[in-house]
Amino acid sequence: MHPLAERLVAGDMRALARVCRLVDDGLGAYRTILKDLFPATGHAWTIGITGVPGAGKSTLTDQLIAWHRARGRRVGVLCVDPTSPFTGGAILGDRIRMQRHGLDEEVFIRSLATRGALGGLSRSAADLIRVVDAWHADVVVVETVGVGQDELEVTRRVDTTLVVVAPGMGDDVQAIKAGILECADTFAVNKSDREGADAAVRHLELMLALGHEVTAPPLGHVGAHAPASGRPVAGDVGGRWEPQIVRCVATAGTGVDELATALEAHRVWLHGTEAGAARRRERLAEAMRQDLRAALLDAALRAIGPEVERAVARVAGREIDPYSAADELVAAFRSSGSGAGRGAAP
Amino acid sequence: MHPLAERLVAGDMRALARVCRLVDDGLGAYRTILKDLFPATGHAWTIGITGVPGAGKSTLTDQLIAWHRARGRRVGVLCVDPTSPFTGGAILGDRIRMQRHGLDEEVFIRSLATRGALGGLSRSAADLIRVVDAWHADVVVVETVGVGQDELEVTRRVDTTLVVVAPGMGDDVQAIKAGILECADTFAVNKSDREGADAAVRHLELMLALGHEVTAPPLGHVGAHAPASGRPVAGDVGGRWEPQIVRCVATAGTGVDELATALEAHRVWLHGTEAGAARRRERLAEAMRQDLRAALLDAALRAIGPEVERAVARVAGREIDPYSAADELVAAFRSSGSGAGRGAAP
Repeated sequence: MHPLAERLVAGDMRALARVCRLVDDGLGAYRTILKDLFPATGHAWTIGITGVPGAGKSTLTDQLIAWHRARGRRVGVLCVDPTSPFTGGAILGDRIRMQRHGLDEEVFIRSLATRGALGGLSRSAADLIRVVDAWHADVVVVETVGVGQDELEVTRRVDTTLVVVAPGMGDDVQAIKAGILECADTFAVNKSDREGADAAVRHLELMLALGHEVTAPPLGHVGAHAPASGRPVAGDVGGRWEPQIVRCVATAGTGVDELATALEAHRVWLHGTEAGAARRRERLAEAMRQDLRAALLDAALRAIGPEVERAVARVAGREIDPYSAADELVAAFRSSGSGAGRGAAP
Repeated sequence: MHPLAERLVAGDMRALARVCRLVDDGLGAYRTILKDLFPATGHAWTIGITGVPGAGKSTLTDQLIAWHRARGRRVGVLCVDPTSPFTGGAILGDRIRMQRHGLDEEVFIRSLATRGALGGLSRSAADLIRVVDAWHADVVVVETVGVGQDELEVTRRVDTTLVVVAPGMGDDVQAIKAGILECADTFAVNKSDREGADAAVRHLELMLALGHEVTAPPLGHVGAHAPASGRPVAGDVGGRWEPQIVRCVATAGTGVDELATALEAHRVWLHGTEAGAARRRERLAEAMRQDLRAALLDAALRAIGPEVERAVARVAGREIDPYSAADELVAAFRSSGSGAGRGAAP
């Protein structure tokens, strides 16, 4: 085992920070370390927190950290920022809001950037979740700033997704709600002391009701819903998880207990029902396909890098279309492996 | 040539709509059609419009369509929405705002969804840009809702990126600005009749100034900046493009002419300077690497699909870590191609 991995698994927070940097930068022995750490993972419960800008995600994250710390749980927080070439990550007051946990030895907070790689965000997040998990965090919170496709991908790497909305945030926000409805396991209507909170709750309820009609599970799934224990699980409705909507005022701490409890109910569903187990399997398969895609490109660039560059020049010169060029490169990559693979000539 | 491709290149809008659907769904002969269409592409100027929710992107897009139509140009518009399982795309009033162009035979407007695939958004957008280009659009506008990594990726598939901001949109918005600063070629400060517009402009100016310090080009780049024509190009500052900040009120049409002119200056820079040519080459190379990654995964799933499923089961059962599993799958894919490739045994 790599010495850093050994220290990290033993609970050394400085080793944890160093490994996070290695993973972020894709440098050094990071892949070896990730392999070493894997047997120590699988313990943490991961919570994704997402929502539109200004909804109060960071303040709510801060409250949830405090809630779990009060229960003696070790907490990791990963803050995902849009790629910023200027800061390499967080530039915000958001981080400052979480500083009350800065001296707590049982809380690890880190911002992560993405270096602009397509799909790099969810990959980095997945790797870092495993790293913090191996440090024996009980809870890992992944907070995303932004509401795009990439954030949706990140929510697929966590166990439980909390979507935070706030009253009165305009037209586009409605669209975003539609986009993230799919991934939400729990909704927080934050700033619920403000005008428009009731409307926001009603809107979510309506969208959830519409969603049921459209995404009713096929018959096979319905049959698979019985809790493994035989006992009913809160939030489980006919083999489907029913997202709860919780009102809160994060700045005042109002509703935080209800919210944390609603999130815990989802964790129980994931581990206590057949449907929850099925979802965990699906998510894992999806993540594996994404990792495979990245590994394939890395290997291809190593094996046929110069051919890739030549293809780029040919497409730029309009000698070949990009689709045929990609087909040719795939063929070249596969045949380049024939000497090393099981299909090699004797 | 595929009959649909033939009709599309001849300017048939119904054929265009059908090809867009085929590409969106990944169905039928879409790849053959894309290959057929490629020789007809390369004419359109592509403009990406992005920014935070509520900044007024759609209204501005509508104004820019009208501006180009007044100059007799054929216009395509692609609206990128976050994946919505309920709507498969747009649910918004945004589209309605553009309906005044709905009967114009020289304007093609289409929403595109992403089917949830990682990186699928920028790939679909790139394919559809080429399709609309082949229809002989002079200008293709790609409007993205949202501000995540995925939208950043889309902006890398266009020639010129306009970032729309509006006064007074809070903390998170500042972070987003930092993230999209990198990709912005022009800024519109929309709703500039509102309080806070001056502050928004100053903030952008400050961030641009900071950005120059951090991202000053290496010496080799500086030497390559001279305009190809020998004449100076507006917006070119020492071989670097200097983003312009334009105030406007999209709903009233104020500032639209200035904005369209600023965008055109960037187009001239792209085609009239060495630095612009270098940027076009870089973008193309980046796009090719992304397309290659997608093509590799498609080919791998076809070639070793069952092995991928087995690997997922082994990772789920914690028999192997996901990193080693991905390495094994890459090796299996490469050796599976040995019978067909140039390295095959005689």
